[in-house]
Amino acid sequence: MRLCHACLSKPAEIFLDYSQRRLCIDCFLKYYEKKVKQTIDKYRMIKVGEKIGVAVSGGKDSTALIYVLKKLYPSLNLVGIHLNLGIKEYSNHCNEILREFIKKLNIPLIEFNLLKQLGFSIHDFEGTEHGKKICSICGTIKRYLLNKIAYEERINKLATGHNLDDIVEVIFNCYLQGDVTQLSRISPITPANHPKLVARIKPLCMMTEMENLLYASYLELPFRSLSCPLSKGNRSLKQKRLINEKIVQEIPTFKHMLFKSYLKRIAPYFKTYPNVEIFECKYCGMPTSKDVCAFCRLTQRVKKLIVE
Amino acid sequence: MRLCHACLSKPAEIFLDYSQRRLCIDCFLKYYEKKVKQTIDKYRMIKVGEKIGVAVSGGKDSTALIYVLKKLYPSLNLVGIHLNLGIKEYSNHCNEILREFIKKLNIPLIEFNLLKQLGFSIHDFEGTEHGKKICSICGTIKRYLLNKIAYEERINKLATGHNLDDIVEVIFNCYLQGDVTQLSRISPITPANHPKLVARIKPLCMMTEMENLLYASYLELPFRSLSCPLSKGNRSLKQKRLINEKIVQEIPTFKHMLFKSYLKRIAPYFKTYPNVEIFECKYCGMPTSKDVCAFCRLTQRVKKLIVE
Repeated sequence: MRLCHACLSKPAEIFLDYSQRRLCIDCFLKYYEKKVKQTIDKYRMIKVGEKIGVAVSGGKDSTALIYVLKKLYPSLNLVGIHLNLGIKEYSNHCNEILREFIKKLNIPLIEFNLLKQLGFSIHDFEGTEHGKKICSICGTIKRYLLNKIAYEERINKLATGHNLDDIVEVIFNCYLQGDVTQLSRISPITPANHPKLVARIKPLCMMTEMENLLYASYLELPFRSLSCPLSKGNRSLKQKRLINEKIVQEIPTFKHMLFKSYLKRIAPYFKTYPNVEIFECKYCGMPTSKDVCAFCRLTQRVKKLIVE
Repeated sequence: MRLCHACLSKPAEIFLDYSQRRLCIDCFLKYYEKKVKQTIDKYRMIKVGEKIGVAVSGGKDSTALIYVLKKLYPSLNLVGIHLNLGIKEYSNHCNEILREFIKKLNIPLIEFNLLKQLGFSIHDFEGTEHGKKICSICGTIKRYLLNKIAYEERINKLATGHNLDDIVEVIFNCYLQGDVTQLSRISPITPANHPKLVARIKPLCMMTEMENLLYASYLELPFRSLSCPLSKGNRSLKQKRLINEKIVQEIPTFKHMLFKSYLKRIAPYFKTYPNVEIFECKYCGMPTSKDVCAFCRLTQRVKKLIVE
């Protein structure tokens, strides 16, 4: 029996490949919370008195996020924001699990139902020219709505459950595609550069997907058991699998090194990336770099299709 | 039987995974030569009347390089430069194969023997604190001597056999380590930024290691059959294997995309990388960013060890 490297008394249950450490459950939970706190402190993500919106999907990452935030900062003004995307079976499943959990945590929850409040769901994009990029469209819709709700609710910062695996996949893809625009935006904290844009924070950006899964599982936090039927076979999932199953096998520190090297050594060179001018969308008034924002462009086409 | 995608008449022998093309031997050789010529033209590597030194090791890459240069530019003033590194069996094996081949090509060959001309070989570094980084030390020694010989021989450009696999491994490693210094130097052509530095060109930078192997093999060019005994298990070989056996399996265009994206989109941001001031080494007079150049620092220690 191997003992925990931290307490040296209980049996080790978890092996962290990137640091070659073995931990027992209790020490893992302490380690997890300490590391999230260190990340929040290092990037000055939260200030006293701020109202923090947490984007909660019902998945393990955002579930772990809202729980750990409440535990680390019991008196913090937290609000959950949940978008029901109208994806068959999946969305209602996520919604039900989440609602009960947030209630138990005694945190207010803002729910937004795409189908009920806007008259369409993510499924309506399947038939359009964006059908093949459905995850990217869904990302645009979510970013827009989360920001709009946070802005209207006078939320100071919007916290999302992005984990290290999410971020490393994006960095890997940006290097591969030479996507400097997206690369220059990768950061644990995104300041608000327009009065109608809410600053975004990623408190779990240093935690792997597996660590979030373990944290949520050991604490028996309820999270969705279904995976999104629309995301099957998408690029991001494929590249995450390549990174976890192939690259990390050879270079266990790969994810941590790639992100830290990016932040410390590479990102400073992209500070000069041209900040585009921000206008207000002529339809919805929300910030955009063009005449009409991406959300209005996408949804107007879908609304038209539904009416036709 | 599958037919060649280019001539549509002969049986295809080669499958290029990154472009999904199948070629017969003749069309592959034409394709190879055309692509090398395009690379040379695109980066303006060679000008009329220049004297080009080709670093020849006896391996498939530099053998393919000197042959294809002679074939593409029959009247070019070419000179082979070969360093005998004094590595047991390996170096003499390389030297013998190479000497005969270059003679047949009717190209002058400059040979430099480390053991005979400097009194030490690469083996002498094995016992030092650099023993674990022997490939990196060997690289420093080779770069220094090749430049010195080229400079003394009034050579205008020094061509090396670096292939796409070599370059992509370096880019991958620089991203991982955040090594901005090395990253900013990656280029198909390195201009001479000091009178004693000879410009360097990499005409095979767009060709994969496999393409060079196939080119040399189909033309029955003689190249070494032994691999360097000192390079076993080094980082670069491990990461090349990871890239070829794991990443390219999932993303066949990985190597071409990573390099092209780097050149076109990422590299421009490193143009601002501080160009260090260049001095002349107080011992040998060759260019260095410090008081004493890396070659003199390394070799003086080894010479001392030998004398002791």
